Amino acid sequence: MERVTLLAGGVGGARLAHGLDLALRPSFDEPTPGTNPAGPRHPESGQAASSRHPLTVVVNVGDDTELHGLWVSPDIDTVLYTLAGLNDEERGWGLRGESYATLEQMARLGEDTWFTLGDRDLATHIVRTARLRSGTPLSEVTAQVARSLGVRPTIVPVTDDPLATMVDTPSGRLGFQEYFVGHQHADEVLALHFEGAEVARPAPGVIDALRDAELVLLAPSNPFLSIDPVLVVPGVREALTGTAARRIAVSPIVGGAAIKGPAAQILESLGHEVSALGVARLYTGLVDLMCIDERDVHLADPIADLGFEVMVTDTIMGSPQGRERLARELLGNPA
Amino acid sequence: MERVTLLAGGVGGARLAHGLDLALRPSFDEPTPGTNPAGPRHPESGQAASSRHPLTVVVNVGDDTELHGLWVSPDIDTVLYTLAGLNDEERGWGLRGESYATLEQMARLGEDTWFTLGDRDLATHIVRTARLRSGTPLSEVTAQVARSLGVRPTIVPVTDDPLATMVDTPSGRLGFQEYFVGHQHADEVLALHFEGAEVARPAPGVIDALRDAELVLLAPSNPFLSIDPVLVVPGVREALTGTAARRIAVSPIVGGAAIKGPAAQILESLGHEVSALGVARLYTGLVDLMCIDERDVHLADPIADLGFEVMVTDTIMGSPQGRERLARELLGNPA
Repeated sequence: MERVTLLAGGVGGARLAHGLDLALRPSFDEPTPGTNPAGPRHPESGQAASSRHPLTVVVNVGDDTELHGLWVSPDIDTVLYTLAGLNDEERGWGLRGESYATLEQMARLGEDTWFTLGDRDLATHIVRTARLRSGTPLSEVTAQVARSLGVRPTIVPVTDDPLATMVDTPSGRLGFQEYFVGHQHADEVLALHFEGAEVARPAPGVIDALRDAELVLLAPSNPFLSIDPVLVVPGVREALTGTAARRIAVSPIVGGAAIKGPAAQILESLGHEVSALGVARLYTGLVDLMCIDERDVHLADPIADLGFEVMVTDTIMGSPQGRERLARELLGNPA
Repeated sequence: MERVTLLAGGVGGARLAHGLDLALRPSFDEPTPGTNPAGPRHPESGQAASSRHPLTVVVNVGDDTELHGLWVSPDIDTVLYTLAGLNDEERGWGLRGESYATLEQMARLGEDTWFTLGDRDLATHIVRTARLRSGTPLSEVTAQVARSLGVRPTIVPVTDDPLATMVDTPSGRLGFQEYFVGHQHADEVLALHFEGAEVARPAPGVIDALRDAELVLLAPSNPFLSIDPVLVVPGVREALTGTAARRIAVSPIVGGAAIKGPAAQILESLGHEVSALGVARLYTGLVDLMCIDERDVHLADPIADLGFEVMVTDTIMGSPQGRERLARELLGNPA
């Protein structure tokens, strides 16, 4: 497959991106016999077309926040760290073998350190913040960090413009990280707002990645907190509904519960059924195929009745092998 | 002694500040019999006058620089860390037992990490930068960090305004840290410029600290790189020449060499004698007494001939005991 685009939030998006990277690596590493290495170049990157990785990951930035004057892009970092093999698989965020000397000292200096930032993770935030302040857009900084970490798929924030997910709860409107980390997503979610969305412009390459892809995937990420803030950027939803690509969504709800995070609570509090069927209803008109877990096989028919093709498989991506296997099935190229 | 003011650069200033803190601590800790703890309050701080530490350290900011988007104030930090008992005595800068996880990761992300920044040291720079950007002046940030670290003397930057020491060398004009750390102060110094000095205003309390002191000390810091950029702030030199305080300078040159740093080379390349006598000539009219090391006893008469009182003692402040002993002698209160 030449061009695959994944819309992703944090952990679920990162794991599927990892699986796709593993599944697509052989075809990327070995030039197709007969191709000319001095041949056509990709119009955007100027790189030889054959050296461009087939996978583009379009990442949510609604969770981004400023902490201690540093710009933190949690979903981008989870994708980058996972693809670089650096992430802490057990916790699901941050870097493996991380230390916390800087944060401990910041606490001593009177900072409120409710958001855990490791020493090596801080390097990303310091570098990102410095480059953003010097005028480099987030998409370019992300590409630079990806190159430095040896990440080969194209990782692109959905927008370089400000876009902030705000969560209305019974105790008022919270910034996303205040809701998610500060309150440990315990509040009932009454509504979600994406501040800045109306005037945000898709980052360079985002629309092309949807329009020119052969396959577009919606990661098993939170539909409200990860996928929606990608789709609200003007032009993105239209590019998804208008693309000629085959479109597949992987359900983040398995057996009536979220694999990780507050997706189940949010589905429920916003009046949706907490199931792969409830997710499918949200994605009507956006994707052609719903990929659901084998534990939800009884939902295959009701989902098909909504007009979807349905794929039933093991969607839990614990190990790299599990991620690659799922990716191969989604690519139509099972091992 | 009720009010002592020290003009200081980095290591020499920090060590003398430490000695003064140790020497003044007993009188600060134990209220004078008969004083009323609910008595008069200091007009500036609103604190009970008796709770105000007698020492104010006015610190050079000409060495300050931005690195990776973070504001670094090396002399302020050396003073703070030394008074907090946190500094690395062997290296003379940074924190003892420091780790470098963040800097190593920043190097991996393509940053030029020629300036060594430890993990805990970075906490200071992150916190300072965030607070400066939110509009808090450097003097207030410095006071906050001092309080957090348990530093009790008043530590104040000479100015809250931009003031940058620039070094003219045969290969062109260099920023101070580029000259000092980047080139390891190997270039010949043709001239020094203090960018921003003409319009810089003394930070709150600086002029009062000179005017109202009983004793003003010039630390054994580099006369050109540490003391001059303090004196060039409009009003500071005048406050020093006009104060009723007794004024003492401690020579940073001992036995014809600098205790630390490039003071000797700079004296020479700017056409001055590399000796305590050469330093005394620079301080004519600024101080009443020159304190020189016993190794320079032969310079006592020539310095006296310039119109100075002369104190000859052991000025090397290796241990805390040595620092306290020198401080007591300068306070006129030898143990």
